Amino acid sequence: VHSESRLRVRYKETDQMGIAHHANYIVWFEIGRTDLCRATGFPYNEIEQRGFILVVTDVQCRYRIPFRYDDEVVIRTRVHELGSRAIRFAYDLCDASETLHATGMTSHVWLDEKTRKPVRADADVMRAFAPWVSALSRDA
Amino acid sequence: VHSESRLRVRYKETDQMGIAHHANYIVWFEIGRTDLCRATGFPYNEIEQRGFILVVTDVQCRYRIPFRYDDEVVIRTRVHELGSRAIRFAYDLCDASETLHATGMTSHVWLDEKTRKPVRADADVMRAFAPWVSALSRDA
Amino acid sequence: VHSESRLRVRYKETDQMGIAHHANYIVWFEIGRTDLCRATGFPYNEIEQRGFILVVTDVQCRYRIPFRYDDEVVIRTRVHELGSRAIRFAYDLCDASETLHATGMTSHVWLDEKTRKPVRADADVMRAFAPWVSALSRDA
Amino acid sequence: VHSESRLRVRYKETDQMGIAHHANYIVWFEIGRTDLCRATGFPYNEIEQRGFILVVTDVQCRYRIPFRYDDEVVIRTRVHELGSRAIRFAYDLCDASETLHATGMTSHVWLDEKTRKPVRADADVMRAFAPWVSALSRDA
Repeated sequence: VHSESRLRVRYKETDQMGIAHHANYIVWFEIGRTDLCRATGFPYNEIEQRGFILVVTDVQCRYRIPFRYDDEVVIRTRVHELGSRAIRFAYDLCDASETLHATGMTSHVWLDEKTRKPVRADADVMRAFAPWVSALSRDA
Repeated sequence: VHSESRLRVRYKETDQMGIAHHANYIVWFEIGRTDLCRATGFPYNEIEQRGFILVVTDVQCRYRIPFRYDDEVVIRTRVHELGSRAIRFAYDLCDASETLHATGMTSHVWLDEKTRKPVRADADVMRAFAPWVSALSRDA
Repeated sequence: VHSESRLRVRYKETDQMGIAHHANYIVWFEIGRTDLCRATGFPYNEIEQRGFILVVTDVQCRYRIPFRYDDEVVIRTRVHELGSRAIRFAYDLCDASETLHATGMTSHVWLDEKTRKPVRADADVMRAFAPWVSALSRDA
Repeated sequence: VHSESRLRVRYKETDQMGIAHHANYIVWFEIGRTDLCRATGFPYNEIEQRGFILVVTDVQCRYRIPFRYDDEVVIRTRVHELGSRAIRFAYDLCDASETLHATGMTSHVWLDEKTRKPVRADADVMRAFAPWVSALSRDA
């Protein structure tokens, strides 16, 4: 179970090596998360409106094959681990022909938007995310 | 009267033409504004803490000579027009040897941070900015 | 005659005012140009492969209504002026319900990719762009 | 042995949570590398001019305490592992009062700029980097 997002590499995202700069992959992961949240029925906007923010505590990315300007990037996003206090997402970045270009993982904790203290996730959000847990990566 | 900021072009800011991407200049202008605010005695942070935000209504930039990776960029920022409701800043971007690479202008209005409605600038802020008005550009 | 592009505001594109940062509009204009080039039959990639680069000499943007995280942005891109040495594009940024949020203009010159000197545009490119000239803006 | 870089969080680098967006840390690491290269006597520019590029194969970042707009960020960069084919850098991000906000690691391989194939590092570059190897992190 994963959600899928598609985008094209922006000219602004290239660097003088002629490839997409590696920091953009972290932004693409976030687009994957946004689309996965929407797919669960809880757009991330709504989560913030309920008074929760999902802050990043860890990011990892492994780069295999570069993307170039105007290449199509297919983002596959999964919930890798789901706890009431923390959540991990996993990502595969492929091209239009299914070749894997990069993989990644991000870890997050729930904070109360006002106090910025760790809290347990909203029960509705937990229920919505549960069916999306999928520990098996394409690499497994 | 102008404030001066210095930075170096980041690798991330280059594109596949091998030059600093033009959208970064708009970000560099903002760094110039931040430093000019600090120089007036009103760091922009403090302005927001007083309940005001300064939103951008217009941006212009003229590009003459590109900057490259690791080049030093010297940002000269002036208050071009100061009204109680609106303010315009002007910018020169030079290199370390005083060659002019780009010029720009941004227009802003004051909004109440809560209501997001236009308001008159805080009187203390107006007093602090007044000595920095300087319509004469280097180009003039 | 305009080309149309659609994207959603990325979380990364928001700032602490809670709106899309104004520098992103310049990047969105570039996405509009990329899509307009593709629509003419000359993907910008191909233009660069023919040894031409289209550098930005001027940028203007007028901001009316902010965009927020996850808002849909509709980019309408037109060729405003087409010369053999220079080209201007005009942009309208709307939301999904056709409300105009911002307008912009960018000016460009053709450079030889090797020498970085101004050149006349490739004749095939000129022919492809000609039908897309459309001086009438929505604002007109 | 580490090199030190200082910058202030740009307004553009904040997001609607009111903190510096996590993807910027990856860009700040790159600024650390640029400054470490300069400190070794081999500005990264010169490395590319010798026909080598240093591509990123892995990125990791652990986030502890957020940075906010206009905060000073102190970047400490070390060579964590130095091989003739690969190199790893480690980073600490502190504030002006030495509090640790984030740590990170990036892995890289040397490529021939023309062929984009893996190569051994230039011998001069290896000699310049050798004294900067420092496996001991502040966390150790």
